[in-house]
Order: sequence, then C-alpha cells, then structure tokens
Amino acid sequence: MSFRTNINAVVSGSGNDAESETTAVSVTVPPETMAPPPELHDVRLPPQKTTFQKLRHKLSEVFFPDDPLQGFKNETRFNKIVFAFHFIFPIFRWAPNYNFTLLRSDVVSGLTIASLAIPQGISYAKLANLPPVIGLYSSFVPPLKYAVLGSSKHLAVGPVSIASLVMGTMLNDAVSYSQHPNLYLKLAFTATFFAGLFQASLGLLRLGFMIDFLSKATLVGFMAGAAIIVSLQQLKGLLGIVNFTSKMQIIPVLSSVIEQRDEWSWHTIVMGFSFLACLLATRQIGIRNRKLFWVSAAAPLASVILSTLLVALFKSKLPNIATIGQLDKGLNPPSSNMLYFHGEFLAVAVKTGAVAGLLSLTEGIAVGRTFAALKNYQVDGNKEMIAIGLMNMAGSCSSCYVTTGSFSRSAVNENAGGQTAMSNIIMALTVLVTLLFLMPLFRYTPDFILAAIIVTAVIGLIDYQSAFRLWKVDKLDFFACLSSFLGVLFVSVPVGLAIAVGISVFKILLHVTRPNTSILGNIPGTQIYRDLDRYKEAQSVPSFIILGIEAPIYFANSTYLQERILRWLREEEDWILDNNGSTLKCVIMDMTAVTAIDTSGIAMVNELKKILEKRSLQLVLANPAGSVTEKLHHSNSLESFGLNGLYLTVGEAMADISSSWKAQP
Amino acid sequence: MSFRTNINAVVSGSGNDAESETTAVSVTVPPETMAPPPELHDVRLPPQKTTFQKLRHKLSEVFFPDDPLQGFKNETRFNKIVFAFHFIFPIFRWAPNYNFTLLRSDVVSGLTIASLAIPQGISYAKLANLPPVIGLYSSFVPPLKYAVLGSSKHLAVGPVSIASLVMGTMLNDAVSYSQHPNLYLKLAFTATFFAGLFQASLGLLRLGFMIDFLSKATLVGFMAGAAIIVSLQQLKGLLGIVNFTSKMQIIPVLSSVIEQRDEWSWHTIVMGFSFLACLLATRQIGIRNRKLFWVSAAAPLASVILSTLLVALFKSKLPNIATIGQLDKGLNPPSSNMLYFHGEFLAVAVKTGAVAGLLSLTEGIAVGRTFAALKNYQVDGNKEMIAIGLMNMAGSCSSCYVTTGSFSRSAVNENAGGQTAMSNIIMALTVLVTLLFLMPLFRYTPDFILAAIIVTAVIGLIDYQSAFRLWKVDKLDFFACLSSFLGVLFVSVPVGLAIAVGISVFKILLHVTRPNTSILGNIPGTQIYRDLDRYKEAQSVPSFIILGIEAPIYFANSTYLQERILRWLREEEDWILDNNGSTLKCVIMDMTAVTAIDTSGIAMVNELKKILEKRSLQLVLANPAGSVTEKLHHSNSLESFGLNGLYLTVGEAMADISSSWKAQP
Repeated sequence: MSFRTNINAVVSGSGNDAESETTAVSVTVPPETMAPPPELHDVRLPPQKTTFQKLRHKLSEVFFPDDPLQGFKNETRFNKIVFAFHFIFPIFRWAPNYNFTLLRSDVVSGLTIASLAIPQGISYAKLANLPPVIGLYSSFVPPLKYAVLGSSKHLAVGPVSIASLVMGTMLNDAVSYSQHPNLYLKLAFTATFFAGLFQASLGLLRLGFMIDFLSKATLVGFMAGAAIIVSLQQLKGLLGIVNFTSKMQIIPVLSSVIEQRDEWSWHTIVMGFSFLACLLATRQIGIRNRKLFWVSAAAPLASVILSTLLVALFKSKLPNIATIGQLDKGLNPPSSNMLYFHGEFLAVAVKTGAVAGLLSLTEGIAVGRTFAALKNYQVDGNKEMIAIGLMNMAGSCSSCYVTTGSFSRSAVNENAGGQTAMSNIIMALTVLVTLLFLMPLFRYTPDFILAAIIVTAVIGLIDYQSAFRLWKVDKLDFFACLSSFLGVLFVSVPVGLAIAVGISVFKILLHVTRPNTSILGNIPGTQIYRDLDRYKEAQSVPSFIILGIEAPIYFANSTYLQERILRWLREEEDWILDNNGSTLKCVIMDMTAVTAIDTSGIAMVNELKKILEKRSLQLVLANPAGSVTEKLHHSNSLESFGLNGLYLTVGEAMADISSSWKAQP
Repeated sequence: MSFRTNINAVVSGSGNDAESETTAVSVTVPPETMAPPPELHDVRLPPQKTTFQKLRHKLSEVFFPDDPLQGFKNETRFNKIVFAFHFIFPIFRWAPNYNFTLLRSDVVSGLTIASLAIPQGISYAKLANLPPVIGLYSSFVPPLKYAVLGSSKHLAVGPVSIASLVMGTMLNDAVSYSQHPNLYLKLAFTATFFAGLFQASLGLLRLGFMIDFLSKATLVGFMAGAAIIVSLQQLKGLLGIVNFTSKMQIIPVLSSVIEQRDEWSWHTIVMGFSFLACLLATRQIGIRNRKLFWVSAAAPLASVILSTLLVALFKSKLPNIATIGQLDKGLNPPSSNMLYFHGEFLAVAVKTGAVAGLLSLTEGIAVGRTFAALKNYQVDGNKEMIAIGLMNMAGSCSSCYVTTGSFSRSAVNENAGGQTAMSNIIMALTVLVTLLFLMPLFRYTPDFILAAIIVTAVIGLIDYQSAFRLWKVDKLDFFACLSSFLGVLFVSVPVGLAIAVGISVFKILLHVTRPNTSILGNIPGTQIYRDLDRYKEAQSVPSFIILGIEAPIYFANSTYLQERILRWLREEEDWILDNNGSTLKCVIMDMTAVTAIDTSGIAMVNELKKILEKRSLQLVLANPAGSVTEKLHHSNSLESFGLNGLYLTVGEAMADISSSWKAQP
C-alpha cells in the first residue's frame, strides 16, 4: 500500500487496502496538475504491525540480536534436547571428538599456562591483600568449572590483575586486612559471590550489552592508571619497605615510598630490580619474536625458582628479605560458611563485587571474543557471562576469589597451541599437584619476586599507542580515556570509571543534542545531492534550499533544529538579497539520516511547516525512514503535508516540484 | 581534494593539495583494471580544519546555534552600542515607537490580566504555603522588571501554579510552615534567589538547551500529576477541613480527606462547589467560544467579590467559614536581609530553587516561544532566561517568590489584545493600587473561593488528549509521560521528574544501542536502493548484500552491529543455499545514516572487513558522511579499504563492482 493511497484511505476513514486503492483513484486531483514525471516513486509506510508485534520485534532485537536459538529451529524434539544440553555444557560438544593429537597440544599449552598461573596466582592474591594460597585455590576450581561451562577454546581462567587490584582497594578502604584478616577474607569471598551473581544475572537477563558502555577508550585509560598504581605499590616489595600505606591513590603511595626511605633494603633492591630487568627483557623477547613466546612464558616460574633457591641458600646472610613463609599443603577448603549476607559491611561487599565483577567480565568477554574472531568461531557473550558468573559463585564457596579469562595467559595458551578447554583442565591438575605436594617449597620465595612478576604483567596494560590513536581520531574519546586515567590515579577506581562512562554517554547525547545539518547541492549530471561544503562541484539549485539533517529528531534537539534551520534560511535569503538570486520557494528536508522521530520532533516538523507557509515557502520531506513515516502518519501530520509533501529522493522532489511550477507559472 | 588522491597523498607522505594531485596521477593503477564507469564519483574528505577550528565550530554550534550576535556584524561602532543596549533592554526597542493605539490595547489587556492576577496571586501564594500578600507582591515587582528586560510581547508575568506547588511541597518537607512561619518565609525567598541565579546562569552560560531535556511527554505527565495533587489538596478549602495533612502524595491527601470527615462544613461545601461549578462553566465557555474569553477572564475576580460580599453580609450566620483575614496595606517590604546563605536548610533551599527555577523557566520559555511563533517574532531563549532569572533575583530581595510567564494569563493577554510588555506594567500598576488601598477588602474573602480558583486554573493542565496522542504515536514517550505522572502522584516532584528524564535519555541511548539495520534492494529502473521490507517492488541484487545502518556507530552499539551484520549474512547465505541462489561476493554498507563514528566503531568496521575477507567477501562503504570519512582517514582504515572501497552511492558501488567482475571473470 503506497503512502498516497494510504493518506486517501485515512482521509476517507477507510483502512482496507483494496478499498483505499479505489478511493485513491476517485479523489485524484486533475491529471494536468498532478501527473508526476514517469520516474516518480511513492513513499511507503512500513508493513503494518500490531503494537504487540512491534514490541516483540524490539525486544528480540534488544535481547537476542545474535539469535542464539537458531539451532533449535526446525529440529526434532530429541535434537532440540541434545542441542540444549550442548548449549548449556559446551564440553559435550567437543569431548566426544576429542583425540590424542588434540590432547598432546593441550598438555603442552596447559603446562605452559600453569607455569605462569602459579607465580601469578600467588602474586595477584597478594595484590588483593589475600593470603597467597587463595591465588592457587583460585587457579584450581574455576578453570575446571569453566572447562565444563565455557564456550571459548582459548580462554585461560584464573585470577587477573585488574580484579585483584579493585578488590584489594575497595575492600581495604572499608576493613583493614592487617587488623581484621578474618573479616577481610569473609568480605572477599562475599564480594566474589556477588560478582558471580551479578555476572550470571547480566547473562541470564541478556543484558550483556551493558559492558559495552565501558568503551575501549575508557578501558585504555583505566588500565593504564591501574597499571601505574599497581606498579608503584610494588615498590613496597621491590624496595623492601615494611610499613607501607594501604591507600591506592598515587600521592599517598609515592609519599609513603619517600617517607619510608630508612626502611629501604639494599639487598632487596639489587635482587628485586635485577629480576625485574630480566623479566622485562624476556617479555620484550616474547613480543618481538612470537616464536620465542615460551621464553617470556617460562620466565616467571624460572625466576621464582631461582630467587627462592638464592634466598634459601643465603638466608643467613640475607636476614631482611621478606618471604612468603610457611604454606599449608592441601586442597581448597569449603568457604560457603564464610559468606556474609548481613551487617554493616554487606554494602561494601556488594559494591566491590559489582565493580570487580563488571571489570573482570569485560576482560573475560573481550578476550573470548578476540580469540573467537581470530580463530573464526562464535562465542555467545551472554552465555559466556553465565559461565563466568557460575564459576565465580562456585569459587566463592571453595575459597576462591574473583577469576576470569586472563588476557596474558590466554595469549600464551593460544601461542602454545592450546586447542580446547582441556588446557584449563591440565592447568588445574598441575595446580592440584602443587597444592598437594609442593607448597613447602614456596617458604623462601621472596616478596620482591612477586612484585617483579606483577610489574611485568601489568606494564603491558599501559597502551600509550592506543591513547595516541584516540587523540588523533576522536578528541572526545581521548578525553574519556584521560579522565578515567586521572580518576583512577588520583581519586578511586569506581569514580574514575563513573566519570569515563559519564563522558561516553555525554558524547552520545551531545551528538543527538547538536546534530550536524548541511546544505546540499546537486552533483551535475546526476540525481545525487551532497553537502555543498564537502563537494565543491555540487551546485545549489535556484529557488530551492535542500537541508540534510544528520540525526534523529528528538525532544533533545527539536528546538535546536528549528532554530538552526531557520538560521540556514535567513542566511540563504541574505545571500540571495546580496547576489540578486531568484527568490526561495521551496525547502526540501533530506530525512535519510533522520532514523527516528518522537512526539517533540513531530511537533517541530509541523510548526516548521506552519512558519514556512506563512513565509510562502513550501516544505517537503525526502526519503523519510520507515519508522518516521509511520509516526508522522499516526500523528496525522502527513495529512498536512498532503499529496505532494513526501518524496522518495531529493531528485524526485526537485523534478516534480519544478515541473509543477512550470505547469502553473 | 578527492579521497582517492588524498589516500595517495597520505601513502606518499605528502599533505599538499597541488602536489597530491600530481602524485595521484603518477601512482594510478593501470587503466584497464581501474577505469571507473563514466558516472563514478569520488568520495571526498571534508575541507581540512585544524583541531582549534573544529573546536570553535563545535562550540559555536553548541552554544550559539541561533547566531544571536548577527546584528553586530558589519555595523559601525555606534550602531553596535545601540544594538547592544537594545539587546540587553528590549524595552528601548519598542518604547520610542510606542503610541496611543498601542496603549489603548495594552490598558485593556493589562486590566484584564490584573483581574486574573490578583485572585490567582493570592491563591497560588496559599498553594506555596505563603501569606496571601506575597502573591500580590510577586505580581507587582517582577512584571515591572520583565517589562524592561524581557523580549516577549505577550508574556504575562507573575506566580504560577506549578512553581508554587513545587515550592510548597519541597520546603514543607523540610520545615513546617505552620510551626516555623518565619524560617519558612526565609527559605522561600532564598529558594527564589537561587531559582533566579540558576535561571540567569543557564542563560548566561548559554546552557538553555538543558530545559529541552524536560520533554513534552515528561511535562504532560508531570503537569497532570501535579494538577491532580493540587486539586485534591484544595479539598481542604472546599470541604472546610481545618486539620489537613501537609504531605503532597495522593495517598496521605486522600486519607486525610476521609479521616477528617467530622470537620466537613456543609455551608462551605455548598458554596465552594457552587462557585467551582460556575468557574468551570465560564472556563468551558471561554474555551468553546474564543470571543467570549472575557467571561472566563473576569470570572475569578467576580467570584472573589461575590463570595466576599456573601461572607461579609452573612458572617453571623456563617461562623465556620475560613477567610483570609486582616491584610496590611502597603508596598513590598525589602527582604534581602531574609536571605539565608548558611545553616542546615541551605541545601533544601538550593534544591527547591533549582527544581522550581527549572520548571518555571520551562513554562516561561515555552509560553514565550509559543506566542513568538504565533505572532511571527523571535525570542532568544537564553536571553529570556537571563531576564527571568534577574527578575527572580530582584524579586527575592523585595518579598516576592518564584515568578515566570504564566500560560493561562499570557493567553488571556494575547486574547485581550495585548501588544507589548506595557500590559505587564498596567497590570503591575493595578496591583499597586490594590496593595496601597484595597487590601482591607480581602478580609472576608473565603478560603473556598481561592481553592475553587486554583482548581479551575490547574484542571486545564490535565491534557489527556496529548497523553492519548503520545500513546498512539510513540509508546516510549507515553511511558515517560506515565512515569512522571505516577512519580509525582505517589512519590515526589523531583523523583517523578528524574524518572521521566531518565526514561527520555534511556530512549536516546536505546536507539543508539540497538539501531535499526535493513537489507536494501534496487527499485527497478532506477539507481535508488531502499528497504526490501518496506518497498515490495525493490529487488535484491544477486551476489550482493546491501546493508543500511541507521545510526552512528559507537562503542555502545559496535558489538551489536557486528553480530547483527554477521547474522544478516548468515541468514542470506542460508537463503541462498535453500534457493540455489548465486554465491554472495560483496557486502555494501550504506553509511548514509551513519552520521558519526568513534574509535570503537572504526575498530568494528576494520574487524568486520577482516572477517569478511576470510570468507572471500568484499566489503565496501557507500556514502560515508564527512566526519566519518575523516575519522576513517585519520585512523588509517581507509588504506585497508584501498581504492575501491568507498563509493558515493550504492548505485555507483554496484555498477563499478559488477563491471570489474565482468572485466576479470
């Protein structure tokens, strides 16, 4: 049903298609004035849908854009059950076809990531102010869970630096870990539980797109800030300082470093920085030559072993070196009795869980998506969120803290040839062996080596090249990046993130509030109309002004657009006066980029039409989008535009209106 | 400089126009593969600008879209000074040409609005829990100020119902007006001061567009809710209840009405509802027949006189009727010593001032704009805000509370033939006479008549027709309307407003987060490509898939768009498999409606290109907007698109790519 017949149908009070077509014929204006040029096309309304159908379509686009249930379509009931089972437990998708070749690859990569995960686990637990063994527990249970539930083949699961940092900062602001170690531990498990709950809920409610609001720009700034704070905090271990601030802002950390100068231990400094230099060097080798990635992957464990041996052998001569100390053998003890669901610190635990959960989710999903795109398979973001969330909820009941897919270890996993989630199982088994038999060996592992491992791991988060690219391409993105960087450095993690998200949302609103408008001109010899400023060969057409509106018309910009359009007209009329041009007779609004309109926008278009009519100017719309045409129709505005107010393209509008002028000189 | 030459220039490291043109010639690819069909046009970058120029342009679009200083351009210094003077004090623009004919009209309309303003002023002051005389003071000083500073010819200035309600509610939540009348009065003046400061600052900082975020939909719901609350509150006066709740939510108000049944006074009820019926009837007459508007305009004053006479004559028989009581003669006393700039209630005063200021500003600006559009003159929104703000700041120092342009009285003003701001001066003089000589006459004015006047005034704010139209045209707008309505009724004014603004902003974000995408097809016999769903005659082109993206590509939607585009491809490929169609070879993205892109968006486009290349699919962009082309250029993404990746229209892309396939079969 074309728009023109439709308007007639509305006018004559009939909604029936067949009838309206006849109505259209019977009310047609005399042909000599109406007859459109042969190439004229009608603007159509989109196919009619009920409110319920529209709502359903909208909801499916909001919550199921990737159509995750496509596999269920046109299948037998049995297949549907099998598919659902595979959907929930992806391990059953690949396990039946698992073979020896795959196992060989996975054992190699699993052992490699285990050699990274053990020293990193201990280090990150210290970063979160938790006992080192919690880091190992967290590298055992969660990877096993993920291997069953997760759909990524390359994600290496375990503690990560950002979530550890967030947890360490936010919890320590409320409860001192040194004064109330037991309460602190309870809060850490509780925060982990809420992080998992939050992650799983986001996935279940299919609100995964929420993490998109942490834009790349925000994350670049946030991670650089966090990396700097974390590295500076490691000066405690590298300099051998005993009494260090527990604050996380840059100023107290730096002043603590300087004030405690008398505690600096030269033995520690020499050894710490030597190992740090070695680790950084091997890291560079790994980056420069991807074939030598194993050098950087093996370096942490090698340094732990070497430094532990050094300290153990020369312990009488190195009395001041801080070490991890006695660690008990044994598997993860249950911790569900330590969860804390009431009392004054519950709010802190929930908030910490939400922030740590959101950030670790962002890392995990981004890593999963990156490798899926690289290896050309699909991960369902929302499904992954449920997997990571369940893994953390289970972790919180087995003495683990927040875990997710680690970017660095996943890259090593992929480099080492990992093929399936089996590499996570191999890693977990290696950690199991460590937990059961090797714990006493860490007794003399010095704190400085953990600090050096953390610095090496987080230094890669400072992505100054991306920041520079942001500056070059998009100043406002760079501004969001900078403010999350400075917010994290000088204020706190949640504030820095909130500011950056605020700026990102403001950017969207600014674009909508002050959209670009331009005057279009004809490109000679074509029916194409483009921005006169940009295409110098484009020519304005006498008696016409063609306005391109480059945004949806909303309450937030309708006043602006009206003022701006009237200003364009005023400027055009001034120009005509100065240059003896031909009088302006018609305003064409190119609505191609007006992808939506609301009631304020419709009111603006109607008012603009009235204002222009008073000035004897005709207003026509070219190529309104489907939803826009529909809303204009529902609000009865189309009637005021009448038969000749809507055109499919600017060119058709131009041709039709010019020819009607010629017909009625 | 065309894009193609530009790319070459970038590759060869040269930014100079002339040079790059020659470079372009020298690197051109052999003609047999390159030669475009004759109608092919290059995509251009917008004219190059420095960061500073861009910032300046952006800032001028954000803050000066209406180009308010146009009058200053190309004028002598003397004219500029005169113009500036006229700009600041619009009275000097019309006063020199003022004549007797205009005066006659203005006297008639001024007296008419005074007859409304006096009873309404007293009533609204009671609504704000202030002494009645404050309402008269507020109808004297502010209109005089506005006449000098304001640029609207029809705005009738004085207290209004919404701002009075907000003030009454928000202040009374903190301080009881019956227990601490003096502190309450101080807070009211302080809130008025801050309202003025806030309004003037918005105008001075040219942030006037902030009020646009209170969309029409929000205001419809808010005003209906406020009108219902206010009307129910008037049951106190109409039923003669003495002990009434001071809360403003619907539930306590209604339960107070029912609980105090024993206080209902039947004399009051009979008289109150009779007068209310008369007032409502005259209001209807005024609406039905615009020539009889004077009936409704005169009715309030007439009822006040009549009811006062009734009560005064029969006072011995009507002992229980509450009246205004003794009012002192005299002009506005100064109140600057009552402003309250420290102490525990300052925050309440500032918050009340901000909300009342914002709402009254919205009303004043909307009324001013409406009549300006009706009578074809311009008001500068930001200038008006400064005028209204200064008027309120001055008011707060002369015993006035928040005032603005009233919709109902301005309409009467225009109907009665008001021509200039002189009608405000006439009204103020009439109020002056009342204040000096007629105050004792109000002694026996009964409370029920004030209640009836308020009900009659606010009942018009319930615009159920607009609400119905919102439902018909835009469900989300209706939802915003409904939530501000329910929020005001059941929670509080600021919460209701905040929810509605939140929903409006969410609507913008939702549109950006989940933009519409569609598959386009060719309309036979043309170079036009339109949505296949909407235009049934449009035909898809074998081997091509043409995607229309209907939103800027941002961090908030880049993941969604990538998933959605890949799903379109998957569905298309499934269809081809089922129907033995020709293999897909090229994806054309119609970027016409992609009005902006950020770094996440660019990353998405690049990744999509890589993914498609792996599947041997070509990705080209048609008609990218200026800023988008520029950002793709700055991020070096255009290089990966190469010479044949950008086209001016879908049609040209189609023609060029098809012909290149024919050339290399």
